[in-house]
Amino acid sequence: MPMSKQGQDPKLWGGRFSSAMAAVVQTFNDSFAFDQRLAASDIAGCLAYASALQGAGLLDHAECEAISSGLEQIGSEFSAGSFAPLPSDEDIHTAIERRLHELAGSVAGKLHTGRSRNDQVATALRHYLMQVTNELTARLRSFQAVLVNRAESHLGIVMPGYTHLQRAQPILFSHWLMSFFWKFNRDIDRLAGAKMRASVCPLGAGALAGNPFDIDREHMAAQLGFAHAAENSLDAVEDRDFVVDFLYAGALLQTHLSSLAETLILWSSEAYVFIRLDEAYCTGSSLMPQKRNPDMLELIRGKSGRVLGHLTGMMTTLKGLPSGYNKDLQEDKEGLFDVIDTLLAEIPIAEAIVGSMMPNAAHMSSACCASMMATDLADYLVLKGIPFRDAHHIVGAAVQQAEQTGVSMDKLPLSALKQIHSAFDEDAASVFDVQTSIERRQAKGGTGRRAVLCQLQEADSILTQASEDKSHHG
Amino acid sequence: MPMSKQGQDPKLWGGRFSSAMAAVVQTFNDSFAFDQRLAASDIAGCLAYASALQGAGLLDHAECEAISSGLEQIGSEFSAGSFAPLPSDEDIHTAIERRLHELAGSVAGKLHTGRSRNDQVATALRHYLMQVTNELTARLRSFQAVLVNRAESHLGIVMPGYTHLQRAQPILFSHWLMSFFWKFNRDIDRLAGAKMRASVCPLGAGALAGNPFDIDREHMAAQLGFAHAAENSLDAVEDRDFVVDFLYAGALLQTHLSSLAETLILWSSEAYVFIRLDEAYCTGSSLMPQKRNPDMLELIRGKSGRVLGHLTGMMTTLKGLPSGYNKDLQEDKEGLFDVIDTLLAEIPIAEAIVGSMMPNAAHMSSACCASMMATDLADYLVLKGIPFRDAHHIVGAAVQQAEQTGVSMDKLPLSALKQIHSAFDEDAASVFDVQTSIERRQAKGGTGRRAVLCQLQEADSILTQASEDKSHHG
Amino acid sequence: MPMSKQGQDPKLWGGRFSSAMAAVVQTFNDSFAFDQRLAASDIAGCLAYASALQGAGLLDHAECEAISSGLEQIGSEFSAGSFAPLPSDEDIHTAIERRLHELAGSVAGKLHTGRSRNDQVATALRHYLMQVTNELTARLRSFQAVLVNRAESHLGIVMPGYTHLQRAQPILFSHWLMSFFWKFNRDIDRLAGAKMRASVCPLGAGALAGNPFDIDREHMAAQLGFAHAAENSLDAVEDRDFVVDFLYAGALLQTHLSSLAETLILWSSEAYVFIRLDEAYCTGSSLMPQKRNPDMLELIRGKSGRVLGHLTGMMTTLKGLPSGYNKDLQEDKEGLFDVIDTLLAEIPIAEAIVGSMMPNAAHMSSACCASMMATDLADYLVLKGIPFRDAHHIVGAAVQQAEQTGVSMDKLPLSALKQIHSAFDEDAASVFDVQTSIERRQAKGGTGRRAVLCQLQEADSILTQASEDKSHHG
Amino acid sequence: MPMSKQGQDPKLWGGRFSSAMAAVVQTFNDSFAFDQRLAASDIAGCLAYASALQGAGLLDHAECEAISSGLEQIGSEFSAGSFAPLPSDEDIHTAIERRLHELAGSVAGKLHTGRSRNDQVATALRHYLMQVTNELTARLRSFQAVLVNRAESHLGIVMPGYTHLQRAQPILFSHWLMSFFWKFNRDIDRLAGAKMRASVCPLGAGALAGNPFDIDREHMAAQLGFAHAAENSLDAVEDRDFVVDFLYAGALLQTHLSSLAETLILWSSEAYVFIRLDEAYCTGSSLMPQKRNPDMLELIRGKSGRVLGHLTGMMTTLKGLPSGYNKDLQEDKEGLFDVIDTLLAEIPIAEAIVGSMMPNAAHMSSACCASMMATDLADYLVLKGIPFRDAHHIVGAAVQQAEQTGVSMDKLPLSALKQIHSAFDEDAASVFDVQTSIERRQAKGGTGRRAVLCQLQEADSILTQASEDKSHHG
Repeated sequence: MPMSKQGQDPKLWGGRFSSAMAAVVQTFNDSFAFDQRLAASDIAGCLAYASALQGAGLLDHAECEAISSGLEQIGSEFSAGSFAPLPSDEDIHTAIERRLHELAGSVAGKLHTGRSRNDQVATALRHYLMQVTNELTARLRSFQAVLVNRAESHLGIVMPGYTHLQRAQPILFSHWLMSFFWKFNRDIDRLAGAKMRASVCPLGAGALAGNPFDIDREHMAAQLGFAHAAENSLDAVEDRDFVVDFLYAGALLQTHLSSLAETLILWSSEAYVFIRLDEAYCTGSSLMPQKRNPDMLELIRGKSGRVLGHLTGMMTTLKGLPSGYNKDLQEDKEGLFDVIDTLLAEIPIAEAIVGSMMPNAAHMSSACCASMMATDLADYLVLKGIPFRDAHHIVGAAVQQAEQTGVSMDKLPLSALKQIHSAFDEDAASVFDVQTSIERRQAKGGTGRRAVLCQLQEADSILTQASEDKSHHG
Repeated sequence: MPMSKQGQDPKLWGGRFSSAMAAVVQTFNDSFAFDQRLAASDIAGCLAYASALQGAGLLDHAECEAISSGLEQIGSEFSAGSFAPLPSDEDIHTAIERRLHELAGSVAGKLHTGRSRNDQVATALRHYLMQVTNELTARLRSFQAVLVNRAESHLGIVMPGYTHLQRAQPILFSHWLMSFFWKFNRDIDRLAGAKMRASVCPLGAGALAGNPFDIDREHMAAQLGFAHAAENSLDAVEDRDFVVDFLYAGALLQTHLSSLAETLILWSSEAYVFIRLDEAYCTGSSLMPQKRNPDMLELIRGKSGRVLGHLTGMMTTLKGLPSGYNKDLQEDKEGLFDVIDTLLAEIPIAEAIVGSMMPNAAHMSSACCASMMATDLADYLVLKGIPFRDAHHIVGAAVQQAEQTGVSMDKLPLSALKQIHSAFDEDAASVFDVQTSIERRQAKGGTGRRAVLCQLQEADSILTQASEDKSHHG
Repeated sequence: MPMSKQGQDPKLWGGRFSSAMAAVVQTFNDSFAFDQRLAASDIAGCLAYASALQGAGLLDHAECEAISSGLEQIGSEFSAGSFAPLPSDEDIHTAIERRLHELAGSVAGKLHTGRSRNDQVATALRHYLMQVTNELTARLRSFQAVLVNRAESHLGIVMPGYTHLQRAQPILFSHWLMSFFWKFNRDIDRLAGAKMRASVCPLGAGALAGNPFDIDREHMAAQLGFAHAAENSLDAVEDRDFVVDFLYAGALLQTHLSSLAETLILWSSEAYVFIRLDEAYCTGSSLMPQKRNPDMLELIRGKSGRVLGHLTGMMTTLKGLPSGYNKDLQEDKEGLFDVIDTLLAEIPIAEAIVGSMMPNAAHMSSACCASMMATDLADYLVLKGIPFRDAHHIVGAAVQQAEQTGVSMDKLPLSALKQIHSAFDEDAASVFDVQTSIERRQAKGGTGRRAVLCQLQEADSILTQASEDKSHHG
Repeated sequence: MPMSKQGQDPKLWGGRFSSAMAAVVQTFNDSFAFDQRLAASDIAGCLAYASALQGAGLLDHAECEAISSGLEQIGSEFSAGSFAPLPSDEDIHTAIERRLHELAGSVAGKLHTGRSRNDQVATALRHYLMQVTNELTARLRSFQAVLVNRAESHLGIVMPGYTHLQRAQPILFSHWLMSFFWKFNRDIDRLAGAKMRASVCPLGAGALAGNPFDIDREHMAAQLGFAHAAENSLDAVEDRDFVVDFLYAGALLQTHLSSLAETLILWSSEAYVFIRLDEAYCTGSSLMPQKRNPDMLELIRGKSGRVLGHLTGMMTTLKGLPSGYNKDLQEDKEGLFDVIDTLLAEIPIAEAIVGSMMPNAAHMSSACCASMMATDLADYLVLKGIPFRDAHHIVGAAVQQAEQTGVSMDKLPLSALKQIHSAFDEDAASVFDVQTSIERRQAKGGTGRRAVLCQLQEADSILTQASEDKSHHG
């Protein structure tokens, strides 16, 4: 037996239906609660469509005017927060159409001529997402600028570079900072690719078969800022690649943020004391008065799950859908919006944390122990003509001896080294200088100061170029 | 430079902090917006803890009374929807503590003695989830009852059973209905296992190291309806298995619902016309007046992605966390609550759809074509002593001949069959009766009427038992 | 107590170690079993590195020659399948180095000068993946050509277009075929973006800090076919974005294939009979002689899980890793290789299925029932000046009446239509012609024959361009 | 055009087919390469089925004998590694049937009477998985025993307990060890639930509709060690919950192992030096001679992605499948087998690492700084009658002052404390003793020695009980 019905305003698609929807079913079906943020994009799409209908002779000038000015008023109502939704508003699109009826009268009923919610919704969502992508890119560029800035300020700080979470070789702190610049650069590139593929306008695809009124789809696309109109009406209404592309770009960006967060959580802890986080990004404990927890960083790390989950979820929803629009696609929004909100909030926080943290140069430097120069010692033997693989074994023996005798490697007497291999000489001691070790690595991309300066120059020119592109293309 | 601060009420953990949180950071940190639903469970936990503090001599009778009556009033405020949160309420737990201060004065400050939000939050979330699990189980039991009911009513309807989405062998419609009974039975079993593992009380574990005031943890656990107190305080505060267990049980349940939805979407379409869905669970099209779309079923199918996404997300969040409570765990709630809301809404809708749909017995029956009895024809040969593998090949040849000559298998003349194999005789024709084919399958679990009646009897006794258990244990 | 050790050849990194690895541990650690396919790429990387070492004065001409000719011989051994691995070969890279020692003697020990497996492995994997991406793209282009080809051949076939798996509006079969052309075009674009980001050469990054021997990294990069050398040595060794990018592109491609498979499974079933699959891509049943199952399509649909699983898995592995190479990254290969093998096998099968299937034009055409022209009937009213929203309701009433009186919509008498609305006239009957309905949709991207021909022309020019690009750039 | 065919042995289902499969298609279709490990389980299932066929009068005694002895010989061939597969062996089941034909002649063709690969494969996979589950459980029990053993040996070691990766309160090292005992206990419970749901025998369900020969399904189930026969033949062949249940139990177990690994990676690093890993579980670096990397732990952490990926993948594959067996289900094996192999290899390694690692009690103890007793200082005030919330703020002020004056908290002069609050007195100093702090936490589950001893006792009795259950039920 069907659920009990309750009287309500009729749905716009209801001509052939004799019974109203059950209330619980309506809630399950409706999306107004979360798709309101598409208001401006939907209104832009409606304006473009009205103008195209006029172009195709389906609206006269006055009708188009009436519709357009009604739409603009609705836009103002949303901006002002004064738009009053009704319980019968199934989604943002029917809410706007309903309100347009109130404002413009029966001519509002002409706006949906040849249009379907299938092309309408896809257009609004793409339009919205293109703008969000711009905003997200801008925030990443700002974060990159902070990284460059800090890297430039701290060129004098040396620290251990790690592999396997163990001290490996000394590097410049600036070199570490810049390692994230390039990750975010790839993220921006992924977002740009996603935006390019989103920049295809479905409007005029109808429900699936195309528009019967010889409407100018390329003109509408251009008017709305799309690169071009979709080439196939079926694909236009069922394609959600642009949603998945964004979720993916966000999920990999999140992975980068999670690594940054993990690293800073470690470095700000008592075990390292490499970094002091600004108090503004820490919280305390309800029980332990001494605590100063890096909660923001932990949340950033933790939110990787949420974003990856939304990506996985959307792809699972798409899996195995038969050709044509299926209502399953309504599931494209909530996860997407949550990812957008998460990323837009998170990046400025990550930027602010990195921008305000205080490096502890003394601790970083003193963590650079002599055994981190073991490779330099092997290189020393290489320059004396010993094949690297042999040099590696010889130095391995020295490491072992240092450990067994409980001294630091640089304190092994020359006699002990000579006993391991005769090629060791007085000058072997010089390899244990941290600065020397760093300065040897000047090949492109290395941690030597000169190489890092080149890297910074390249980064600067990327940011400058991005800033120029933005001011030209908006 | 840190984000600009804005004046605000101090956090409860703020003694050692000299600066307030930035607003955007606070929003990122706080969870009050979504964890309000834990109010009743948190209050229950507070009441139990107050009583335990009294037992341990840390509150006197009057103090415990003051705290308890304050908590009860707060409970009433939440029930009545009159609780007024402040912007500084970081989460539901601090909101309740803040309000208790207003109502009971400084004695409220004694409630957190020896308690941490770590054990407090985990207790409330488990307590809440145990109740949700009961409710979800009850809804699944109700759905199972509908399945049994419909299966009992429609024992006369035959239909094609499918493999590879192709007609395979005739079955009873009731047998198909009952195939979902057992899936939901396993779901209920998984929920029961999840609940059992959730039924371990962390209260008294403190932040991580345990309670220093000789509090009676088993007594608190019992008072709150848990099976027992957690055995290890570290594990108690970091364990979120119970969240993942629930998400998993929900995700597999969703998979079952997605198969049900997919099948009914197919069967209610023009290609099958096996089922007519009640109009209350369909919607129309904004463009195409004739449409009657199975939107509810499509949403149910689509929501599998969402739920699986939350499971994947939570497990990703947990991956690689070091020992001890980490703030990443705050990510345990939003996905969980979304899954709960999705499932609680969805199951009654699925139940109502199945309960109200109209099977079209004529279409189902006429889709049972003769070639679906090919196995019966092979079995006929088996009973004449031909090994099954040979019989399969012989019948395969008959199938091929029927196809090539464009006749239905049961219309192949006996002479043609005899030419393929001499064992065919007059009585071969009898295998092409749908009822006969079905009635041959009486071994346990088969589609024969008698076997299905046994199945229904077993199902009935499961439901009766469940109902008795529920009325005994609540 | 550690597991029992067993004597074995020493690892190349073993200088400082006093005990050998336990056997089970070695198996867990080693990757030779699955990374052999990187042989050619690793050898290319070794050759480039040897030449760079010579350029930097660390190898003389004869040494470089000895190493190079040894490497080339090893390459031949792998090509011929005669390379003989030893149990101690930890991975393909140490296997090659070990064999080089056998062939070239102690000079082989010089090849690792300044190089680490961290930069070496990342270089080989990127190099290999760039080639796989080319191959995969070529297979997709071939599949696209089949789609275009079939679309061109079958322009005369009409069929129902679906939304919500229900008949919506008539379309050309060619239009449906082309809807997949554009999905694969986006897949190719994603692969191109992934390849571009993969085309960054880590060689010379060392373990993490860069190369100390003033080696020419850009020259090596160019020699190996990379666009440029990595800009930051830390990022170079820890970056696995290129793996994830490929997995993602593959997972979304799989989603497209799953939709194609689902649709063809439906259409080749008895409920539709739109398509007959070539027998070569079907299998039978061990029990039911009549079965002709679309197994290949089901496997294609099913493999979406596998590929999405590998994507999710890799991102989970990356989540929360601290800065620097971590051994977790060794998990980058098996899933990737499985995805590569799956996609390379699957696309030609999907192409062959589409290329060989036989459309049943009669069944497709007869499934185009009159109610699918309901939108055309509403458009008819629109052209008489009735606002679309009203027209939709009027036609909805006609649909309802047709259903209630049990006639097809096009059989409703004019008098009945006129009773619903006076604007209906004799010419209303003309909208129920399938060809007319299709031919009305000539706006760009529509299903009208002219619009589809434009679409095909655009597709042709994309394929021509791609083929020219390929012959120019290899 | 279909792919080129190549001559090959006919498939067992091929009666109605006129063309052979293309080679690439066959590879895509076949599963013999990975399902061989089911040989013993399939043979057990065949033996039970043969005996049931005899019981139902479809085989006479001699026929059953011939089949059984053939099957036993095949079993011996697999055990001995001498079974010779043919290229035409589609899967392990057809391989065994083919070999049985060779050994027993045409009577082998009777074994498949009334049986389908659908029920046959599901039976073998469940049978195999039940045994794997026993083995996995045994390995976890062994690991638990090592945890208990080490916890008992090291009761004297104190260390910092962490929250937010920051020092929080002192705990016993044994308490930390035991925190994993309970996680693994839940894992074992999940495996037991999974096994119980797997213990349902599909044999006799046929392809989907049940068995037509009045076979005794419960007897077969019991003979094969299942709890009972499946109640619904449709559900029996399409149900893969048991696979997902196992994958899930494995994925959550992996999450626990990843936390263990992360923690030990941290603690064995130079930043902590809490633990020294046995050399057998470390590896070196190809470039850096001094490295001693915790590779095994990193791989264990990294493999969480793989296992979670397989879970996600399988659930995605299942999503939206229509009723009835679909070939997509063949994707149930490779991921499952990979998870099984991963877990069975990994747990003994994790056990061996924990069993052999050397704690550094001195470093652990000296990391217990005075501020970790801040909560104890607040509790001190509580016992003087100050509400905890006030005490927390007072101690917070003391923490701040200690930091600002650069002294350890326990070195703050009493006068300074008294200035903050008059309740401080001489005895305040006593709270800064680590042992005292630990010994205060004796409530159940706390880190006090007495509480930990109770915990160990409970753990011991669990292990004893498990060992008894195992020896009784095998």
